[in-house]
Amino acid sequence: MTSTSLTFDSVEAHRAWLASQSALPEGFRCANTRFEFVPVEVHKPSKMTLTLISLDQPTDSFAAMFTRNAFPGAPVIVGRARLRSSHWSAILINNKISNVCAPDGVTTAERICEALATQLDIPVDQVLPCSTGVIGWQLPESAIISQLPSVVSALQSESVLPAAEGIVTTDLYPKVRSVTVGQGRIVGIAKGAGMIEPKLATMLVYLLTDLDIDRETLQQALRDAVEESFHCMSIDSDTSTSDTVIALSSRRKPLDHLQDFRAALTQVCRDLTEDIVRNGEGVHHVLRVHVKGAPSVEIAREVGKSIVNSPLFQCAVCGNDPNVGRLVMAIGKYLGEALPHADLSRCAVSMGGCELLRDGIFHLDPASENALVAHMRAAELYASVPPPDGLTFVPAVRFPPHERCVEITVSLGLGESECTVLGADRTHEYISENADYRT
Amino acid sequence: MTSTSLTFDSVEAHRAWLASQSALPEGFRCANTRFEFVPVEVHKPSKMTLTLISLDQPTDSFAAMFTRNAFPGAPVIVGRARLRSSHWSAILINNKISNVCAPDGVTTAERICEALATQLDIPVDQVLPCSTGVIGWQLPESAIISQLPSVVSALQSESVLPAAEGIVTTDLYPKVRSVTVGQGRIVGIAKGAGMIEPKLATMLVYLLTDLDIDRETLQQALRDAVEESFHCMSIDSDTSTSDTVIALSSRRKPLDHLQDFRAALTQVCRDLTEDIVRNGEGVHHVLRVHVKGAPSVEIAREVGKSIVNSPLFQCAVCGNDPNVGRLVMAIGKYLGEALPHADLSRCAVSMGGCELLRDGIFHLDPASENALVAHMRAAELYASVPPPDGLTFVPAVRFPPHERCVEITVSLGLGESECTVLGADRTHEYISENADYRT
Repeated sequence: MTSTSLTFDSVEAHRAWLASQSALPEGFRCANTRFEFVPVEVHKPSKMTLTLISLDQPTDSFAAMFTRNAFPGAPVIVGRARLRSSHWSAILINNKISNVCAPDGVTTAERICEALATQLDIPVDQVLPCSTGVIGWQLPESAIISQLPSVVSALQSESVLPAAEGIVTTDLYPKVRSVTVGQGRIVGIAKGAGMIEPKLATMLVYLLTDLDIDRETLQQALRDAVEESFHCMSIDSDTSTSDTVIALSSRRKPLDHLQDFRAALTQVCRDLTEDIVRNGEGVHHVLRVHVKGAPSVEIAREVGKSIVNSPLFQCAVCGNDPNVGRLVMAIGKYLGEALPHADLSRCAVSMGGCELLRDGIFHLDPASENALVAHMRAAELYASVPPPDGLTFVPAVRFPPHERCVEITVSLGLGESECTVLGADRTHEYISENADYRT
Repeated sequence: MTSTSLTFDSVEAHRAWLASQSALPEGFRCANTRFEFVPVEVHKPSKMTLTLISLDQPTDSFAAMFTRNAFPGAPVIVGRARLRSSHWSAILINNKISNVCAPDGVTTAERICEALATQLDIPVDQVLPCSTGVIGWQLPESAIISQLPSVVSALQSESVLPAAEGIVTTDLYPKVRSVTVGQGRIVGIAKGAGMIEPKLATMLVYLLTDLDIDRETLQQALRDAVEESFHCMSIDSDTSTSDTVIALSSRRKPLDHLQDFRAALTQVCRDLTEDIVRNGEGVHHVLRVHVKGAPSVEIAREVGKSIVNSPLFQCAVCGNDPNVGRLVMAIGKYLGEALPHADLSRCAVSMGGCELLRDGIFHLDPASENALVAHMRAAELYASVPPPDGLTFVPAVRFPPHERCVEITVSLGLGESECTVLGADRTHEYISENADYRT
């Protein structure tokens, strides 16, 4: 299954398309509110958005996957405990501070959940907390609690956009994807642009549906969809401490064919995966690496990850420089460790349809060089613009101008398994974004 | 063992120090020559330097370690075969093209060795070829062979500097380190600034000694020294296809104590490791991460590597931004995979002597924030200068101004093993260097 391609010429066209996807499934409501506070760690004013997603009726149909990072955030710790609840009713999400390894982090998260539960008149174990942002800082507990009445009173059942917009941090635009299945729908939203190489899940994804599916079946469908989507991407090889994917069903619409639901859920996850990579921090080029002829799907995926995570190959693509030697270096870096005795004499590599390596030997000439440059130029989302201060690069677009990729195919000649991995180049905008992220 | 610290305030002071280290051990000679050629792959003129290191008499005391990349260069393939020779007499090194996966790469390397062997009147199996540079391109065989008389006639026995200068690519300055042991010496030279996370060896290191040591003892000493030096560094997590470390002895001076030799060899390797990291592509800050309390040295090293290879932490250090949450993220990213059930409740992290995390919980305030910023500013080699074209950043120094590091200590609380890892930040200069490396 591939992701759905999209091209826009303007912010307005992108906004109109987002609106067309954003109708909430039956039984859901959402809202956000934005406010100022002062982190105790730095004593400088900062802004936070609080987002609430709620169900009209508690549901017993929920599924969640969390980060494998060994320092999980407090909301992840609480969320794992919530998997034992009988029903879920609400998700409260804040950006700016991720509540990871902070003093009394779990207690703070639970107290905020209790305050919300009181207002919504539901048990506290029906409230799931989520946080994203700076690691190590403490949540401003009283400021958040004082904002709860305003976000509850703003709840509406029309559009998921307030939630998609409320959860972002360094994202340039909100991410919404939806698929209709029979009489119901699946709507997914995501945030995430850096610290993205999910292990089990990615940074805050919410999948909402009104289709009638039981909890166990939903959990299995989510695991399978994540495996084929978020697990096949990397922006910067860093695994977040807060990665969370949630699926919730209000069970209002009949589900005729489970296979249709599973396919639709995977499609939404794959589409969101592409949205996340395409809006990765500073991304100029999206890389789509199709690895085949592998002895296992796992090895195919790791070969693809080794390519998209190679700093040198990422920089070459940023410069539209067909330095394909680095591509082969990255394949060999992984395989030299994982399969040190593999016979690579049948390995082939192509880029933009142009075969570069055949039977383990390069075939390069000025004509292929020119073809590769043209392919990369065509796949460029934007080029760097020299910044006014000479140092702080800012992306030149605020919407996805097209959905083209740098297309790479690797045939290992070692088996029958395959996998497609999405990644991105490495640019001045990524450095600028992350050299001073917290301000 | 730590590396030796060095501070210079000018190119001239650095050059004078290099000269003071560069006397060749007895029995060695070297030279280089530079020439123009046209690569068949791009049809644009390019320049190459050919370097020759030779022994007055063939030696049976040699040792070598090569890359673990699954696509080794042709010189690595030939070099592995040369380990079965009875004696070595000469090493011929070219930069600009690494002869990896190129058509007829091994045949070309062997034909160049034969031409040199004829001129030096030695058997071809006494000549070791080495190449570094663009991956995938073919060596200009006839151009190289036509340069051999000029490099042979330039051989001299005074200084190793012509070799140290001849082998560089993106290095800003040559790297020489030496130690005196009794009546003899060990002199080491290295090149390498990118594609540096060696697996078994790093990109082209030559260790020359006149101390009398047999081949087997030299090989063991080299393996141990590499394990404690080049294996504990990473600039960009990319493992070269050409990594090669060679040790050669002319056996002219008596060796009284083997332990002294082993310690001196390790010292030279550690010092060269620091030189390589400090001159890594675009490096503003050297990171020295001391990981202790680990269940094994391997895990201590991989925790250190996970920190120095985290793109997000690297960018934060570049910006002198004490985003220490990313440091903890990087520890958890590795341990979540390697030891998913580890108890990290006794984990502590400090930076510049300031304790940030104790018993798994952060303790951050404006005072520690200011101390961390001051520590990083003091360890900065140089700051970016806005480039004339707004895009192409060039390092502001051409010599190592000081030898200070960003000092990080991680106590895992999981055991008794430890390891110190060297790495670097990620900067605009790295992006500029690598977005268009081949021109």
